[in-house]
Amino acid sequence: MVRLPVVLGNLGKIILIIGIAMLAPVVCAIVYGESELVPLAISAGITLISGGLLVYFFDTEKEMFYREGFAIVTLGWVAASLVGTLPFILTGTVHSFADALFETVSGFTTTGATILSDVEAVSYAVLFWRSLTHWLGGMGIMVLFIAIIATLGNRANQIFRAELPGPAKEKVSPRVSSTAKILWVTYVVMSVILAVILILQGMPVFDSLCHTFGTMATGGFSTKNASIGYYSPAIQWTITIFMALAGTSFALHFLAFKRRSLKLYWRDSEFKLYIGILGAASLLIVVSLCGAGVKLGEETIRTAVFQVVSICTTTGYGTVDFDQWPALARQVIFALMLVGGCAGSTAGGIKVGRHLIMARQTGIELKRMLHPRAVLPLKINQKVVAPELLVNVLQFLFLYIGIIIIGSLVMCAMGLDLVSSLTSVMTCLGNIGPGMNLLGPTSNFGFLPAASKYLLSFMMLLGRLEIFPVLILMLPEFWRR
Amino acid sequence: MVRLPVVLGNLGKIILIIGIAMLAPVVCAIVYGESELVPLAISAGITLISGGLLVYFFDTEKEMFYREGFAIVTLGWVAASLVGTLPFILTGTVHSFADALFETVSGFTTTGATILSDVEAVSYAVLFWRSLTHWLGGMGIMVLFIAIIATLGNRANQIFRAELPGPAKEKVSPRVSSTAKILWVTYVVMSVILAVILILQGMPVFDSLCHTFGTMATGGFSTKNASIGYYSPAIQWTITIFMALAGTSFALHFLAFKRRSLKLYWRDSEFKLYIGILGAASLLIVVSLCGAGVKLGEETIRTAVFQVVSICTTTGYGTVDFDQWPALARQVIFALMLVGGCAGSTAGGIKVGRHLIMARQTGIELKRMLHPRAVLPLKINQKVVAPELLVNVLQFLFLYIGIIIIGSLVMCAMGLDLVSSLTSVMTCLGNIGPGMNLLGPTSNFGFLPAASKYLLSFMMLLGRLEIFPVLILMLPEFWRR
Repeated sequence: MVRLPVVLGNLGKIILIIGIAMLAPVVCAIVYGESELVPLAISAGITLISGGLLVYFFDTEKEMFYREGFAIVTLGWVAASLVGTLPFILTGTVHSFADALFETVSGFTTTGATILSDVEAVSYAVLFWRSLTHWLGGMGIMVLFIAIIATLGNRANQIFRAELPGPAKEKVSPRVSSTAKILWVTYVVMSVILAVILILQGMPVFDSLCHTFGTMATGGFSTKNASIGYYSPAIQWTITIFMALAGTSFALHFLAFKRRSLKLYWRDSEFKLYIGILGAASLLIVVSLCGAGVKLGEETIRTAVFQVVSICTTTGYGTVDFDQWPALARQVIFALMLVGGCAGSTAGGIKVGRHLIMARQTGIELKRMLHPRAVLPLKINQKVVAPELLVNVLQFLFLYIGIIIIGSLVMCAMGLDLVSSLTSVMTCLGNIGPGMNLLGPTSNFGFLPAASKYLLSFMMLLGRLEIFPVLILMLPEFWRR
Repeated sequence: MVRLPVVLGNLGKIILIIGIAMLAPVVCAIVYGESELVPLAISAGITLISGGLLVYFFDTEKEMFYREGFAIVTLGWVAASLVGTLPFILTGTVHSFADALFETVSGFTTTGATILSDVEAVSYAVLFWRSLTHWLGGMGIMVLFIAIIATLGNRANQIFRAELPGPAKEKVSPRVSSTAKILWVTYVVMSVILAVILILQGMPVFDSLCHTFGTMATGGFSTKNASIGYYSPAIQWTITIFMALAGTSFALHFLAFKRRSLKLYWRDSEFKLYIGILGAASLLIVVSLCGAGVKLGEETIRTAVFQVVSICTTTGYGTVDFDQWPALARQVIFALMLVGGCAGSTAGGIKVGRHLIMARQTGIELKRMLHPRAVLPLKINQKVVAPELLVNVLQFLFLYIGIIIIGSLVMCAMGLDLVSSLTSVMTCLGNIGPGMNLLGPTSNFGFLPAASKYLLSFMMLLGRLEIFPVLILMLPEFWRR
């Protein structure tokens, strides 16, 4: 059973969190003396008041039912995305609702695809809000919600699991609310470290904060039209490393810090495969570029590694236009769009953990053909993977590929070519950012018809919540008593 | 344990079957008084003698071990493909071994991709052999082998299952050898019916036989450069219907005939989904073509339905160049390349049956989220699908997609663009025929480097044997005692 008041009351709390976050761009507008101060203050005001009213009228029940948990996660993301459009619309930065929604969903889901053709013309305050949506959505609006308002009882675990990406959800603490707090604190600490390093490397403070948000959340919104290509090679290397870290399980970061052991990383099968994929893909691109006559040197290696880490972790920052690369390098990027980061990271996509489970199971299927009567359990990190999880992981792949195919059919119907439509859906569902052809790294999504912006926004949400929590709300049975 | 003499002895029998089949083009050369008579007779002679020698020296053991079954299936296909190149090479029709192997594997696996740029310049006898490889590979060299030489004991079932396509292998008879016989007889009867209809519709006898082979096997080799576009609309409709029938389970055809009930088709969930996909895809293409200004009429509908049935059943015949179609129609063809025909048919690809299992399981996954404690078995046609089969089906999708991605990376490394490389692997792995861009319906595979021809031949074999029986031979463990 889904009780509307319980859902609305909790949505109110989520909207309140977003409203509080909206005070940051207000402060930013004051600091830079920008004229956007008034519309931004109005945005925050509307958000805080509507959130407050929902909480006041509906937040009476403390315990929630099972299904209400799913409704709150998915509708919470929709609600955050709706109020999140206000700063874009009221400041006049974006002129249509479809564009504002696309930009906001792209922000919260850490996709980083934009409809803006010239970000350098946008005010500091609005750019700050745009990057902040990345940071809030990266570790998760719901995880923050659980960390702050720990009164969800036994439903907190369910909401936590529905939002945190990846198949294996490690708990760093037996209590979900402390796990949520630990993850957010780890996220904040790493963000502070990155921001300080970027400032020390000569990046302006404003740029550092915005790019810290974009990097740690594996988002991709930049404050420069040339993205990270605008900055020095040293800064590019720093961002490469932190993108890679943000694409790793934050629980693993916390445990490695707590136990003072870097060996923990190397004991993690998923992390090893992730590093292996990053290395192999970078190597292939260097070979492909050098084969096309590019000189082998620091610049070539940096360019290859940056683009690989950016796409694999689903960040989407760029230093060059990979769409101009030779066929092999371009195909490596295409393949990386189907990989994704590690489970429990801020990255999107299919996730390395799922690929690991599926690859190991391939070996088991073959061994089962050799020894038909043998019992061969699937193990990851010495732990047996439950058959239900295996089916769920494999099923996820089917849905993921199916959504790409059906989504790109619809994009084609709206007039895009095959590669543009295929990669537009892949990049949005994977929360990556750039696509190929018409939607390559130097283009933007602004020219698309409004209907395809709504479709792609929906794809981003599907990808961020890993499909199932969104689909379940579409079952008529879900809403039945 | 794998005993080489047992494997070689059985390979000898398979080579003998191919050698006997090679007498058909010899007869053809006599009928048409072609100069290819001598090299074709030599081809048949070499094949019969080498098969005979293998049987004479090694066929002493009657019982075979479990692993030997897999070795015989996969190596049997390799052996058939190797000797099958002889007519192409000795007649001088094809000038390199890579080309001859590609053409032969494409024939036996019923892919239908060709390296020939002008088939109308090739002699009748060689064209007949080329089309005959389709027909032999369609229902299956191994199924024929079991049907003819029924002395495999309890291993016949395993060999049968390894070759017959699709997840659910219906047995029409409790004995595997009679099932194999029934399937081949059904196949022969339907082929005779098609050939007679084509002759009555005015197609020359030679063309009728070759196109019957290509249609019933869902192959795609034609005797005309314009493929089926050369013939009348009535013939195009006939071939459309028989391609659709060849993409349906032959066990279903046999049972419907035996029980005199056409209702059996409609009770089959896979068949219903298959017809639904064919209908929906045709409709989308008609809409897309009409949207681009094409007049709605019999020709438009025929063109759409023909191409849809041809690609979905993995036949690969054409009446137009779909690569020139508008984006939506082209994308529908792209998506159909990932569908395939029904289980137990002569079609390749992922198969509708697998899609059905995965789609139904999606519903179950969602329902399990709603009712976490409910027991929800997966059922197809009122029968419960075993969890092992479900995992195997899902695992197959992972391997299938993974092979497409890795294969197209290699094709890109050999210089192809993204769409050409992606579709070349999709069309070969799916045993379809035409790809897109450089490898579209009006192009051929002749210009590719030799290495990529070997890779694509391997892809065709992987697709025809549905991956696992080929991969298992690559495990070092397989060959260990």
